[in-house]
Amino acid sequence: MRDPVTIVEVGLRDGLQILDRVVPTADKLAWLAAEHRAGVRRFEAASFVPPKLLPQMADAAAVVAGARALPGTVVHTLAPNLKGAAAALAAGSDVIVLPLSASEAHSRANIRKSREESVEELARVCRARDESVRGGGHAARIDAGISTAFGCTIQGEVPEDEVVRLCEACLEAGADRVALADTVGYADPAQVRRLYTRVKAVAGDRLQGAHFHDTRGLGLANVLAVLDLGIREFDSSLGGLGGCPHAPGASGNVATEDLAFMLESMGFDTGIDLEALIEAQRLLAAILPGQPLHGKIAAAGLPKSFRSPVHA
Amino acid sequence: MRDPVTIVEVGLRDGLQILDRVVPTADKLAWLAAEHRAGVRRFEAASFVPPKLLPQMADAAAVVAGARALPGTVVHTLAPNLKGAAAALAAGSDVIVLPLSASEAHSRANIRKSREESVEELARVCRARDESVRGGGHAARIDAGISTAFGCTIQGEVPEDEVVRLCEACLEAGADRVALADTVGYADPAQVRRLYTRVKAVAGDRLQGAHFHDTRGLGLANVLAVLDLGIREFDSSLGGLGGCPHAPGASGNVATEDLAFMLESMGFDTGIDLEALIEAQRLLAAILPGQPLHGKIAAAGLPKSFRSPVHA
Repeated sequence: MRDPVTIVEVGLRDGLQILDRVVPTADKLAWLAAEHRAGVRRFEAASFVPPKLLPQMADAAAVVAGARALPGTVVHTLAPNLKGAAAALAAGSDVIVLPLSASEAHSRANIRKSREESVEELARVCRARDESVRGGGHAARIDAGISTAFGCTIQGEVPEDEVVRLCEACLEAGADRVALADTVGYADPAQVRRLYTRVKAVAGDRLQGAHFHDTRGLGLANVLAVLDLGIREFDSSLGGLGGCPHAPGASGNVATEDLAFMLESMGFDTGIDLEALIEAQRLLAAILPGQPLHGKIAAAGLPKSFRSPVHA
Repeated sequence: MRDPVTIVEVGLRDGLQILDRVVPTADKLAWLAAEHRAGVRRFEAASFVPPKLLPQMADAAAVVAGARALPGTVVHTLAPNLKGAAAALAAGSDVIVLPLSASEAHSRANIRKSREESVEELARVCRARDESVRGGGHAARIDAGISTAFGCTIQGEVPEDEVVRLCEACLEAGADRVALADTVGYADPAQVRRLYTRVKAVAGDRLQGAHFHDTRGLGLANVLAVLDLGIREFDSSLGGLGGCPHAPGASGNVATEDLAFMLESMGFDTGIDLEALIEAQRLLAAILPGQPLHGKIAAAGLPKSFRSPVHA
């Protein structure tokens, strides 16, 4: 029995939202289907935001429906506020991620709310979910996604105490889970271990996820750092798509294919067939001609010594 | 007091040897000087091989002399055999690395020797060094560099037992140190921990170094894996130069600037000024126009939260 690790493909949300182009719904569904064939079962499929702000996400409900139609999928969506969460709920999201910024400066610049106001919005979202459940609606999990948890391009350092306090406030507000995100690629493995250990102490099993960017090359080292602490759920993006609109050329999320390669090589069970995942990466490259992709395993190929348990 | 970690810049050897072009000696010395300004003190500066085989290394003695002229440097060189080692010794190398392949197939294809014959050659090199010392020559350290320790593009898997046995044989033959190299970028953090633990058990403090390639994106994760085991000496290459001539487009060694960034961020003391190191990377890019470089920190820039202890 291998130790299972869950990968959440976030490319359809975090990857696509920063592109200038709008990817047609049919291409998104082809991407979903290709990764589903490779064994990926969790997708952060869309963001419920006004189409005027993010035209890339205008088809959110259709993409969620497409993801739900694939057997065994668990569909995560992002919602910045109560209105988005209501739409995410109505679309049938299994997990709704509400992003809250640990950096006060980033929070005000990005979400136009103080952290305190974000927590109040989270509480409203949790109550809306609970009411929906009482009314016979389905029981979506509400995750607080703590962005800029390891630093911020606006204010620089984000004090660890403030991250821990924000996590506590989110759990008190009713979040089912908290996850820490290195939105700008500042985290290092020592910091990651320190902060995860502290948040784990207050959140226990309600701290499950990790969202690392590979902007400065430390994405997989940071994954390794928290694997050692028992974290077993990781966001990543096919082809490393994503990143920061303010840092052109910089790479984005940890690449799903490299993450899956590392985990499978180490003996963890991701349920993913690496060769099929590399096929999905090639499909993504065809969907996004001219778009730089950042993973390495697709170009280098699997080691001759690699034995896929999926094929065994 | 921060925990010191030594970085050995191997780009002048492992990086340049696979290029089609021959870099002029003056450019190599400019590169050395730029990294020296950034605080790098150990350089694997050249390989002592017949110029007909590797014209890129024809100026090995001049480059070693240039490196030695920089204050405080420790100069490593690579020598494939006794003849090369004699030249390396005469040039004033502080450390001579003799590469031995853990894969029998790779050994025969690459060095044209069985592993046993390689160990015999290593013994001859150690005796030659000892004789030189008795004759008043300087006491170069002899390192056995165990290549393909984590797998091989020819034979695939390399049994761990054979790696451990080869390390023991090298130490019995007189090597001062053994170091494990993931020549082809096959290693994963779990394998690295397993094998380093086993070799440490037989080599003790004579196992010091690690040489990881980033071909499949796991280079820094592998560094983290052995940092946890107390390993404190890492090979890397500015701009991630290097790699495998059989895998065009694949990235090479762990990038020195990303490695130094990770270590300094984690609180280790590399003695390196990151900003000056990024300057050296830009010089390298100018020396090698058109050559793809693979590190990330030079493009992404240092985090706003990064505080260089060198500047503190």
